[in-house]
Amino acid sequence: MSVVPNENEALKNNPRSIAILGGTGPAGLGLALRWSRAGETIILGSREAQRAQAAADKVRERVGPHANISGMENTAACGAADILMLTVPFEGQASLLKQLKPAIRSGSILIDATVPLAAAVGGRASRTVGVWQGSAAQQTAELVPKGVSVVAAFHNVSAELLNGDAALDCDVIVCSDDPRAAQVARDLAAKIPGVRAIDGGKLENARIVEQITGLLIGLNVRHKGHAGIRITGLPAQAYR
Amino acid sequence: MSVVPNENEALKNNPRSIAILGGTGPAGLGLALRWSRAGETIILGSREAQRAQAAADKVRERVGPHANISGMENTAACGAADILMLTVPFEGQASLLKQLKPAIRSGSILIDATVPLAAAVGGRASRTVGVWQGSAAQQTAELVPKGVSVVAAFHNVSAELLNGDAALDCDVIVCSDDPRAAQVARDLAAKIPGVRAIDGGKLENARIVEQITGLLIGLNVRHKGHAGIRITGLPAQAYR
Repeated sequence: MSVVPNENEALKNNPRSIAILGGTGPAGLGLALRWSRAGETIILGSREAQRAQAAADKVRERVGPHANISGMENTAACGAADILMLTVPFEGQASLLKQLKPAIRSGSILIDATVPLAAAVGGRASRTVGVWQGSAAQQTAELVPKGVSVVAAFHNVSAELLNGDAALDCDVIVCSDDPRAAQVARDLAAKIPGVRAIDGGKLENARIVEQITGLLIGLNVRHKGHAGIRITGLPAQAYR
Repeated sequence: MSVVPNENEALKNNPRSIAILGGTGPAGLGLALRWSRAGETIILGSREAQRAQAAADKVRERVGPHANISGMENTAACGAADILMLTVPFEGQASLLKQLKPAIRSGSILIDATVPLAAAVGGRASRTVGVWQGSAAQQTAELVPKGVSVVAAFHNVSAELLNGDAALDCDVIVCSDDPRAAQVARDLAAKIPGVRAIDGGKLENARIVEQITGLLIGLNVRHKGHAGIRITGLPAQAYR
């Protein structure tokens, strides 16, 4: 073994960073809190750098001074990270991706949690609108540069519970056409206490996983809860 | 109280019967087995009376001689029952309902478990086709006589596990525009050991619950299991 690390080794030693785009919303903040606690390097992205920094400071207060979290404007966050986590409302998804496109590094992984809720066009949050490509995640796949792997995940995790301190009680179904990227997302899901990750197959299956969020929102309204889902009946090796 | 029972009281004393249409398929047989064990009166419906009777005999063998189960041709089954349970493949749903329409009693409840799998048109069982009305259950609601209440339920219960003897580990999401009919379906779901019933709101929400079956079938293929779902994060009173 050489004493001087080569580029690959240097990359390996350099801890990966996760940019959470739309990171000052409840879902983004909740993921930042949980992943920061798990030791990940987090960059909160927002339209305004100041707002992102203030949000990052709040997360650090909760996690502790060792928390590796910063805040940046979305485009800068994008350019500084290897993994991008998209947690924006559907109405902002396409325009944000078009804006970010030049900043997204080739070879990076974009995890999309967007749900095409009808609320985006003034309808109900328990209903969805149809997306031409089949799902919000497939729309994302059309909008990112070549060489970027899109994963759909984290749609069905309660943002409110993510922002708490208790372990969750839900599964994250992960869909992607790139098995390596899917594995990265499943590992990130499993870092949230109480969450199991399940390989949900190809990205096209995101259309069902996205719909489930509409159902869960309806259940939350009807039953006053923070609904999640568990998949039962699969062998142990199916989880994570 | 009068000694001579009036018509309503006679109806109350006369145990209700459940016709399972398409009852010789795996889902129908599994529901028949579980409900028969719970003491319900079951009529298995099939295209051929003989086939239905043979299937009913097999269920009786497993449940015991006290089982109140018989087999009839679908139309006859329909006319003899207060609750209709529809467990047919999507490709047979509309034509069967058109055939049965004159036989369906006014005031009866029809529980629909149909899933518009793409398999109906030669596609995959992990994909669905779009239904004009929004869901297979809403198509059913268009095809039944006035005064019949349609409920969507039991889409996501593994037929294989229903046909076993062990308790299940899944929830049944029940959607209907008629709260009384939805309650009947939820009570029936809760009679299956291990199953909890959840009010999923209006019949239109069936479109999401139906899609989930496609996802579960994909998970079964990928992970070699018998997937079901549990809804977490709701208060105890939300179940049943």
